[in-house]
Amino acid sequence: MPIAGPLSGVVVIDLTRVLAGPYCTMVLSDLGARVIKIEVPGGGDDSRAYGPFFDGKSGYFAAINRGKESLALNLKSPDDLALLDRLLARGDVVVENFRPGTMERLGLGWDKLHARFPRLIYAAASGFGHSGPYSQRPAYDMVAQAMGGIMSITGEVGRPPVRVGSSIGDLAAGLFTAIGVNAALLHRERTGEAIKIDVAMLDSQVAILENAITRYCATGKAPAPLGARHPSIAPFAAFATADGHIIVAAGTEALFVKLAQTLGRPEWPKDPRFATNAARAEHVEALQTEIEAVLHTGTSAHWLPLLEAAGIPSGPINDVAALFADPQVAARNMVVGIDDPDFGALKVAGNPIKMTGFDDVPQRGPVPKLDGDRARILADLDSGAL
Amino acid sequence: MPIAGPLSGVVVIDLTRVLAGPYCTMVLSDLGARVIKIEVPGGGDDSRAYGPFFDGKSGYFAAINRGKESLALNLKSPDDLALLDRLLARGDVVVENFRPGTMERLGLGWDKLHARFPRLIYAAASGFGHSGPYSQRPAYDMVAQAMGGIMSITGEVGRPPVRVGSSIGDLAAGLFTAIGVNAALLHRERTGEAIKIDVAMLDSQVAILENAITRYCATGKAPAPLGARHPSIAPFAAFATADGHIIVAAGTEALFVKLAQTLGRPEWPKDPRFATNAARAEHVEALQTEIEAVLHTGTSAHWLPLLEAAGIPSGPINDVAALFADPQVAARNMVVGIDDPDFGALKVAGNPIKMTGFDDVPQRGPVPKLDGDRARILADLDSGAL
Repeated sequence: MPIAGPLSGVVVIDLTRVLAGPYCTMVLSDLGARVIKIEVPGGGDDSRAYGPFFDGKSGYFAAINRGKESLALNLKSPDDLALLDRLLARGDVVVENFRPGTMERLGLGWDKLHARFPRLIYAAASGFGHSGPYSQRPAYDMVAQAMGGIMSITGEVGRPPVRVGSSIGDLAAGLFTAIGVNAALLHRERTGEAIKIDVAMLDSQVAILENAITRYCATGKAPAPLGARHPSIAPFAAFATADGHIIVAAGTEALFVKLAQTLGRPEWPKDPRFATNAARAEHVEALQTEIEAVLHTGTSAHWLPLLEAAGIPSGPINDVAALFADPQVAARNMVVGIDDPDFGALKVAGNPIKMTGFDDVPQRGPVPKLDGDRARILADLDSGAL
Repeated sequence: MPIAGPLSGVVVIDLTRVLAGPYCTMVLSDLGARVIKIEVPGGGDDSRAYGPFFDGKSGYFAAINRGKESLALNLKSPDDLALLDRLLARGDVVVENFRPGTMERLGLGWDKLHARFPRLIYAAASGFGHSGPYSQRPAYDMVAQAMGGIMSITGEVGRPPVRVGSSIGDLAAGLFTAIGVNAALLHRERTGEAIKIDVAMLDSQVAILENAITRYCATGKAPAPLGARHPSIAPFAAFATADGHIIVAAGTEALFVKLAQTLGRPEWPKDPRFATNAARAEHVEALQTEIEAVLHTGTSAHWLPLLEAAGIPSGPINDVAALFADPQVAARNMVVGIDDPDFGALKVAGNPIKMTGFDDVPQRGPVPKLDGDRARILADLDSGAL
């Protein structure tokens, strides 16, 4: 059963695989939509072969597809296409993340579908979008991160760019597609008209570059990686302690005075190198050295409560183990279980969109077996429940 | 005039400042909503003081707030609160990113507003959310990135974590809030009921950790930074050529076969170390060495067209300057101008949600002057246009 939410009753025909599209439909599922995942017979979604594995089954696939239903269809078989047609006639949204042109070759392009199913919303997530010179190129997360600029501003100073540690190339596209689908559902509800949404991974990376674009426009110089510090505020960075790193973000003069006092160096604000944010930004490396000389004398667990008590924005750099132990993460129900015996040990991210009127359930639906929901889907089509 | 889009006619009363909230309302604005930004008299949004500056005015503020309207209100003044009431009575959504409790202290908490304006949707973006033990703590992007785990998986192998180069702590929260607002608008359209959306920066970071959570559950070991490669798919990384680095992302068995052929090493897929993705992920360093031994024999400009012709996902690592020169970015209208003479040189990110039925305008509205839209807003209230 889908989760109760603002999308309850919405049926998503999900032709997506791997990550950008499935992440979008996972978000829709967490908002209450019924998501019917159409998979290739035989192997299904490519990501069913991606590790890590739990009892031989993909945890990668499970984490993104929990709570969806699976139906295996060969989109080149007339019989299977006829069944897909029945689903599209009942669905509210079709989501796909094929390479542009694939849906047209299958006879399932927007123009044809829109003519036959005028209330069906069509959402496409692709590497480069459904227009432009690179449209036909394949893309994966890493290509989007690299071509879209975020790698060029992520990494250590003076060293090669690094990838954002999660697949932000896919996830950003999935999020923008989810926004588009919701907006299109509203538009259809108000006007009766369905639209096509076309989201590119590359475009989505441009959309999250934030002030790197502004800085480039102001200076004509492409921004470079800055490690773990802010481009213009100091101190606002990660600092080494005796046993790790912590964040200290003292973004105002008053906070810097408090920080100097808390670290037992009340003379810092009178040092001309550190007297103003502009001076501190100019002498950011000397400031880092001075702060770390103090922080090295204690552990992170020593310093963090002192900084918090002084009202200085600060925090630990949590790894996933620390995150799982964090009381705020638990209180917010952000690590949830899966109702699936094959994946007993697997936890997945909860829904960050907390809403009045709908339970934030602590358990997500089971992981679909390939074609495992065929009987129910056919029965629902026959009975009119779908 | 707002852009025409699926949110045309939707009025957003925007109490947000700095980044997470303003990014959310920028997305809503790009979808057609009319966004009325309420600012503190005197200085306005804090980010009006953030560089880089264009002719003395903040490019940081301009990039996120273009196309919104500004009205300065003192939320502690009864007269100004009365004017805010008139706006809330006409608005569809109120968005705020104060520290939790602030709206209640102003008499503007969800319970009171919902009782008085039962159709008003309420969306809050905050550091830690409206519940849980850290709810009252202040947060900045960097604190959310650090506590939320993404820094722990971003950076070079064996070296300290780095920050994601853009403010993904704020932006992810802005995107989830935008999804929630759209879903709430649909829900209200269908049922007449308004809901409150409560999105935390910390929660949003957990939601984009992706398979780092799965890997932790599978192994009990917290994932660490991996530089520029994917944790579980191989080959999927940056590779050195004779004159730089390129991305090669061969995410399926078929693509790996094509890659082996393109690099003149058709025997690779038969090598037991490289025969499956699982094997390649296990032998990822050997695979990197073998691939770079070939790529070192040519420049990036030699290899990229060959890889592209073979249909292998691949690409350069673009900085912002290269991005601005990229024909696909131009063709997709992803770098747009601002209709504001004070910011002639400033370009901003376009809307990555491309939609049929609505023009993707190449120019965004002007940057609001503090309180600059008061006369029009008052006139629209009086005339019933608002």
